[in-house]
Amino acid sequence: MTEFTVAFSPSGKRGRFAEGVSVLEAARKLGVDLDSVCGGRGICGRCRINVVEGIDQKRAITSALDHVTQAGDVENRYQRVRRRPFMASERLGCQARIRGDLLVDIPAESQLHRQVVRKRAESWPVKIDPVSRLYYVEIEKPDMADPSSDFRRLAKSLAEQWGMADVRAGVPVLRGLQRTLRAGDFAVTACVRHGRDIVAIYPGLKERVFGLAFDIGSTTVAAHLCDLGSGDVIASSGRMNPQIRLGEDLMSRVSYIMMHPGGDRELTQAVQEALAELANETAQQAGVARGDIVEVTLAGNPIMHHLALGLDPTELGVAPFALTIDAGVDVPAREIGLEIAPGAFAYALPCIGGHVGADAAAVVLCEAPYLSEEIRLIVDVGTNAEIVLGNRSRLLACSSPTGPAFEGAQISCGQRAAAGAIERLRIDRATLEPRFKVIGCDLWSDEKGFAEAVGRTGVTGICGSGIIEAVAEMAISGVLRPDGIIDGAMAERSRRVEAAGRTFSYVIAEGEPRIAVTQADIRAIQLAKAALYAGVKLLMDRYGVSKVERITLAGAFGSHVDPLYAMTLGLIPDCPLDKVSSAGNAAGTGARIALLNAASRREIGEVVRKIEKVETAIEPAFQAHFVEAMAIPHARDAFPHLEEKLGVTLRREVISEPRRRGGRRRG
Amino acid sequence: MTEFTVAFSPSGKRGRFAEGVSVLEAARKLGVDLDSVCGGRGICGRCRINVVEGIDQKRAITSALDHVTQAGDVENRYQRVRRRPFMASERLGCQARIRGDLLVDIPAESQLHRQVVRKRAESWPVKIDPVSRLYYVEIEKPDMADPSSDFRRLAKSLAEQWGMADVRAGVPVLRGLQRTLRAGDFAVTACVRHGRDIVAIYPGLKERVFGLAFDIGSTTVAAHLCDLGSGDVIASSGRMNPQIRLGEDLMSRVSYIMMHPGGDRELTQAVQEALAELANETAQQAGVARGDIVEVTLAGNPIMHHLALGLDPTELGVAPFALTIDAGVDVPAREIGLEIAPGAFAYALPCIGGHVGADAAAVVLCEAPYLSEEIRLIVDVGTNAEIVLGNRSRLLACSSPTGPAFEGAQISCGQRAAAGAIERLRIDRATLEPRFKVIGCDLWSDEKGFAEAVGRTGVTGICGSGIIEAVAEMAISGVLRPDGIIDGAMAERSRRVEAAGRTFSYVIAEGEPRIAVTQADIRAIQLAKAALYAGVKLLMDRYGVSKVERITLAGAFGSHVDPLYAMTLGLIPDCPLDKVSSAGNAAGTGARIALLNAASRREIGEVVRKIEKVETAIEPAFQAHFVEAMAIPHARDAFPHLEEKLGVTLRREVISEPRRRGGRRRG
Repeated sequence: MTEFTVAFSPSGKRGRFAEGVSVLEAARKLGVDLDSVCGGRGICGRCRINVVEGIDQKRAITSALDHVTQAGDVENRYQRVRRRPFMASERLGCQARIRGDLLVDIPAESQLHRQVVRKRAESWPVKIDPVSRLYYVEIEKPDMADPSSDFRRLAKSLAEQWGMADVRAGVPVLRGLQRTLRAGDFAVTACVRHGRDIVAIYPGLKERVFGLAFDIGSTTVAAHLCDLGSGDVIASSGRMNPQIRLGEDLMSRVSYIMMHPGGDRELTQAVQEALAELANETAQQAGVARGDIVEVTLAGNPIMHHLALGLDPTELGVAPFALTIDAGVDVPAREIGLEIAPGAFAYALPCIGGHVGADAAAVVLCEAPYLSEEIRLIVDVGTNAEIVLGNRSRLLACSSPTGPAFEGAQISCGQRAAAGAIERLRIDRATLEPRFKVIGCDLWSDEKGFAEAVGRTGVTGICGSGIIEAVAEMAISGVLRPDGIIDGAMAERSRRVEAAGRTFSYVIAEGEPRIAVTQADIRAIQLAKAALYAGVKLLMDRYGVSKVERITLAGAFGSHVDPLYAMTLGLIPDCPLDKVSSAGNAAGTGARIALLNAASRREIGEVVRKIEKVETAIEPAFQAHFVEAMAIPHARDAFPHLEEKLGVTLRREVISEPRRRGGRRRG
Repeated sequence: MTEFTVAFSPSGKRGRFAEGVSVLEAARKLGVDLDSVCGGRGICGRCRINVVEGIDQKRAITSALDHVTQAGDVENRYQRVRRRPFMASERLGCQARIRGDLLVDIPAESQLHRQVVRKRAESWPVKIDPVSRLYYVEIEKPDMADPSSDFRRLAKSLAEQWGMADVRAGVPVLRGLQRTLRAGDFAVTACVRHGRDIVAIYPGLKERVFGLAFDIGSTTVAAHLCDLGSGDVIASSGRMNPQIRLGEDLMSRVSYIMMHPGGDRELTQAVQEALAELANETAQQAGVARGDIVEVTLAGNPIMHHLALGLDPTELGVAPFALTIDAGVDVPAREIGLEIAPGAFAYALPCIGGHVGADAAAVVLCEAPYLSEEIRLIVDVGTNAEIVLGNRSRLLACSSPTGPAFEGAQISCGQRAAAGAIERLRIDRATLEPRFKVIGCDLWSDEKGFAEAVGRTGVTGICGSGIIEAVAEMAISGVLRPDGIIDGAMAERSRRVEAAGRTFSYVIAEGEPRIAVTQADIRAIQLAKAALYAGVKLLMDRYGVSKVERITLAGAFGSHVDPLYAMTLGLIPDCPLDKVSSAGNAAGTGARIALLNAASRREIGEVVRKIEKVETAIEPAFQAHFVEAMAIPHARDAFPHLEEKLGVTLRREVISEPRRRGGRRRG
């Protein structure tokens, strides 16, 4: 028996193989990552390779293609039928058989486990290895003399042709089995989950299937449709969470359930309908049949997680805030109202605790602080702030009741981040006159052409990042005192500071609508930022650190807010500003990672169990941190480098002990 | 450490145990079958024992109760709360601790695996060991400081208190979890399937749960509600299969599907509604909550099996009659429309082949020919006859197209076995006058008071067993010739033989309705019995036997037919008459066995795979046997002992070769 050396790039693996062995077989034997859906029949073309060099022992380089068998009928048919002629050195790995020493290059698109690298520097690559994969099989036809069922013959083919022992199929999958087998003339592609459960069966060769990642927020629900082969997002869509009509925030929805028997079913139906509509919408956008969607992942806060699965969240509204289930949950997709592949499952990421949900778990999966050497602080600001602190040796998490002020809610002129909202604001240190930018317009308000540029939309309100800058600038310019009171004395210096009953407001715009920051607005921001900081501080105390090495702001607020102002106001602790960054929709990205990589589910399941949950409500230190953090500005440790950036000297006054206890000081 | 000898009856097991060990622990260590639901907490009372004797080494017999600790608070509370005072020697095994040599008797009701012995002699005992069992657990309460979910704490308790690692629960079970835990103050009973999947959770201690066995026939659907602890049937109900309105027999239902798109869904809905109604009906009869029904089994022919599960049976209507699935199928009960325990499953028995279904598998499970040394023939007569032949070394099965004649259908005066139907019939050898009995009346028609006894119902028709006896008696008395022609010459001897066009009829009753056996009726019976016999003969040929050692007739027809006449007419081959018996509703019994005994499912799954399926339609020998078996009477081997029983000499003429080929002989 003649043997030859075959080497693969880019893996560098090599071995000796007998003449006549196919390149695909050689790759498998060596554990080289070479894809195949059709099982070596020369149909799918997933195992395309480049025969780059024959390693001839006598000559250094020889005509590479001489060292494999010539392309035959199968490959000619493939090129013709698929209209995909081979490049010079190209062949199908399953057809090209070894007849000399070889160097084979595997192009990226022929790798079974392609890697999709996360966009940001600190992220780690995600291997495309979804829980469900496609397997093409040819099946014995039924025969009067052999009464074995269609399913038995399918299972036999999967066992013989793909080594999958003991596959299973539920009745919804079995329902279409006979028709599909006959439509494919007993050649079908099975989509199999975890190598065990058949999710769908397609006639003939099927090459692409899809998955849906849902990020279910209290306010909005977002869906990303991904190609499970490439990992690409091929369509995205979002909509308001229709539950809003039954309660604006989470607690009012839980109250609704408590007051209306069956209310949980109503809320479940509302969110499940939104999921179904988003599935349809994204599938239509991408021109994908719903039956080609074979897997779903869900991320959401604990109450959304429960309601989306159809679990009553009532207990999450009262102490001790017990979750029904904290582990990752697999549920048949049809049980949550999704009509996709008949055996498709939805996987809900695990919940960390009663207040720190599957959304936080998704953020953790996305940001992977559990792989980090640096001590990281990750903050996802929504109606509550989910805070994660730590590194590979220890992780802590809590939820802090910031309220919705950072989202522009409960602010007199507040609004969501949308066109017309003030998102940036500066106050002249001398005149106390403001200038600002609104979303949808590149000019500052004091620049020429601003009025025309904002056009008919006008200036409609102030969003979360705008209010942060407004409050910080008010403090820097002295309009606001460190105890959070708008200084009435300033009314003498500027008409912008205006009496409003017994308190004062700062007027940003006098048009219609009139936009001002009231004393109540300041209080709302003060409470929110104190809650956030207290939560962070609590975790830092618990971990035993006085500094964090990297800060990541997740979520919409985190994408818009300027870290400089967030730190000035004291939302986040001191940290070099170049180590503070936004993670964008990290929960959505985490849901996508869980969709694309099977191992990530086990990983996040294990990580979540190890995270130390801190319940802010029962920690006495939380109150102390909270009161201390009410000062504006607050982040005194950070002052030196903030002052440099801002070009001002920040006031170092602190609220004195007796006053602190006494609560408000009047101006 | 002092040790004592503890012996148990009835098992005879014994061992040495340290002083202070509980009787329950001792029983478990020895593998003695002693029940417990509450895990030794003295609540459930399942471990009641009798301390019958202290085995004192010095004296032969001593006061038994001195050799265990005295009954304390737990047992006193048990007796009071459960209003179940102990008998003299009675104690709870979990509370009584060893302090001397002991002989402990375990009463039948305290055995975990009680045995229910099948009624008939050749049957084997069934151990009560259902797939789902009850486990009482006490669970840690949720705590702000420990965010682990309710499910995690439940799973932990099941692991710690019952050694069940890694239990799972689907969303429908999780849905009620939090409310149930709180209703039971964190003491609940979990019903767990296969030691893995939680089926239901009940507050506090739950002691009885139930299962439903369905036998789904083309004509009728029957349900048996069983206590999964005792194995007793506590309610039964049946109803017409509502699919009948969409097609009288199986093939007309398959035709309906072929002609009406979505017709399979319609047929599925009809039968699933019947199952749901029967579940309600039996639960109401027995005063059982539907949520206490935790398991379901299904038996039925292949087409009913597929339709009940929601599988399209179209392929079963055309060669090669491929089943979708032949293995046993577990399907969530709610997926087949049953609203019972939230995590309950329905288990459909395996199908043997495209024509020999889960009903035949249930008959095999009930009769267990695979355990028999004797060569057994089991025949289940319905619209088709399912035939099983063999013993522990080899089993064969086929389905033979008898048509519905044996059920009284396609017979001019035929009817189902119900009040008013002629079920027995004798013809006077000299006068050719008939006498008969009808269902619902104990008198023969020639006995005094018969007319009054049958009352207003009157004589309404002739059922399957009646037509068998009528045809056999016609043959014995010479009215019918061996070739199956009613002998016109007999019209001269009796007015009972009457011309009807070119053929003759035999008139049984002249009233209203007039009841007669026509030449067409004879043909229908002739075809049916020839088909049955040919199927039996085919299996005997294949097995290589000329005789069978035991014959079992299953199903309604089998319960009513007189083996003497069945053998005379040649429905079944020669066999000593005392070895021919009825198995009653063996399919229903098989479904009950699968409900009560987990191991039986694996057993029948393995047996079914080993059964050799014979497809009558493609066996040339079937036709030859069929033609030969057309003769009336036919079972010539059996004549000697039949003649003795009947007190007549049977005619031995055979249809000669040319005539046989030529078909009918005219009289």
